[in-house]
Amino acid sequence: MIRLHDVELSGNCYKVRLFAALAGIPLERCPVDLAAGEHRTPQFLALNPWAQVPVLVDGDLVLRDSQAILVYLASRHGDPGWWPDDAASQGRIVQWLSASAGEIQSGPASARLVEKFGYDLDKADALRRSARLLERVDAHLACHEWLELGRPTIADCAVFPYVAWAHEGSVDLKPFPAVRAWIARVQSLPGFLSAPGIQHAHDRAGDGHCSLQIKSKTEP
Amino acid sequence: MIRLHDVELSGNCYKVRLFAALAGIPLERCPVDLAAGEHRTPQFLALNPWAQVPVLVDGDLVLRDSQAILVYLASRHGDPGWWPDDAASQGRIVQWLSASAGEIQSGPASARLVEKFGYDLDKADALRRSARLLERVDAHLACHEWLELGRPTIADCAVFPYVAWAHEGSVDLKPFPAVRAWIARVQSLPGFLSAPGIQHAHDRAGDGHCSLQIKSKTEP
Repeated sequence: MIRLHDVELSGNCYKVRLFAALAGIPLERCPVDLAAGEHRTPQFLALNPWAQVPVLVDGDLVLRDSQAILVYLASRHGDPGWWPDDAASQGRIVQWLSASAGEIQSGPASARLVEKFGYDLDKADALRRSARLLERVDAHLACHEWLELGRPTIADCAVFPYVAWAHEGSVDLKPFPAVRAWIARVQSLPGFLSAPGIQHAHDRAGDGHCSLQIKSKTEP
Repeated sequence: MIRLHDVELSGNCYKVRLFAALAGIPLERCPVDLAAGEHRTPQFLALNPWAQVPVLVDGDLVLRDSQAILVYLASRHGDPGWWPDDAASQGRIVQWLSASAGEIQSGPASARLVEKFGYDLDKADALRRSARLLERVDAHLACHEWLELGRPTIADCAVFPYVAWAHEGSVDLKPFPAVRAWIARVQSLPGFLSAPGIQHAHDRAGDGHCSLQIKSKTEP
């Protein structure tokens, strides 16, 4: 069994849980108690000296970093559509894995760390970065159904959590209808797994631009 | 010919030039004049709406993001050793691509943006992040000759530029002998390409721990 050292409210962990659920890959979840400092125990540091979640253990392989785990799981255990083996597809997807580790981490993920968990980070800076990022993602999604390749890939799984949790960092998604429509599309994928605080598509409705693209699961 | 839209002093561009030189992949460099705002012209934004360098153009494919470009070039045009096609190797390497887009960007790259280019970023924060990152990388390199797989991979190319340029952000590498020894090993790879301000291994000598592992290019 593949083990995921996991924190329920961590967006980086949620990326992995979401992908595993969508791809039908069973994971054994091992909760890590950050409040109790479990990520700084010798046992945990032996797994990940960076003292971060998630960590994946599959046989002898131990991987830190959510993007690395997505690539490994998709390549080893997933349908090839999530992470095709051709150079152009991998390059296109990695553009979004980098955004996830970079602009999303320093934008909406950081805003949420301040707002929800009281981290001592520059909130105004995180909000500025969030707005710039979301403008770019919205412009891209205005003419793409999925982030790359015209279908769901690990790029969507990497970007979804902190964007769908943006409101928990006081980042308003109202100006970004294409982002909201994409969130709804991800939520309607077979096997979609939610997380505490993720709003359902119908909670976001009331915007013509957006609702046009939302298909209710109960519609024919 | 593969075209790289490129800025000489950008570490993200240097990652690509370095890898292409080591892997023997010819690139046509198209300089982008950031000072003149060339990255905000309609022509450039049509290539990359994110208004960032580098951008790679190979036939019909246009890629932004240095990590994405490394993955694409290695997969399409490089020897398989740089980016093997098995899941575990790709996962191990992506750990460092994420660090390059995340912790390195918000650490030594940001410190250099403030110090060398006058960016309005929080320098103290960048220095704290740099120290934490370099401690982790140093501990890893103290028992690994290369970042992953026991040989040079695109992980080393992604991490090298901003770490080797750390001094330009007033980040001191003296406390990190394993990092300095690794810098020297990268510099002694066949085909290594330098960049303005990158110090040579012999300029860094004088540390026993480090010099033990440095092999001069002129030694037998």
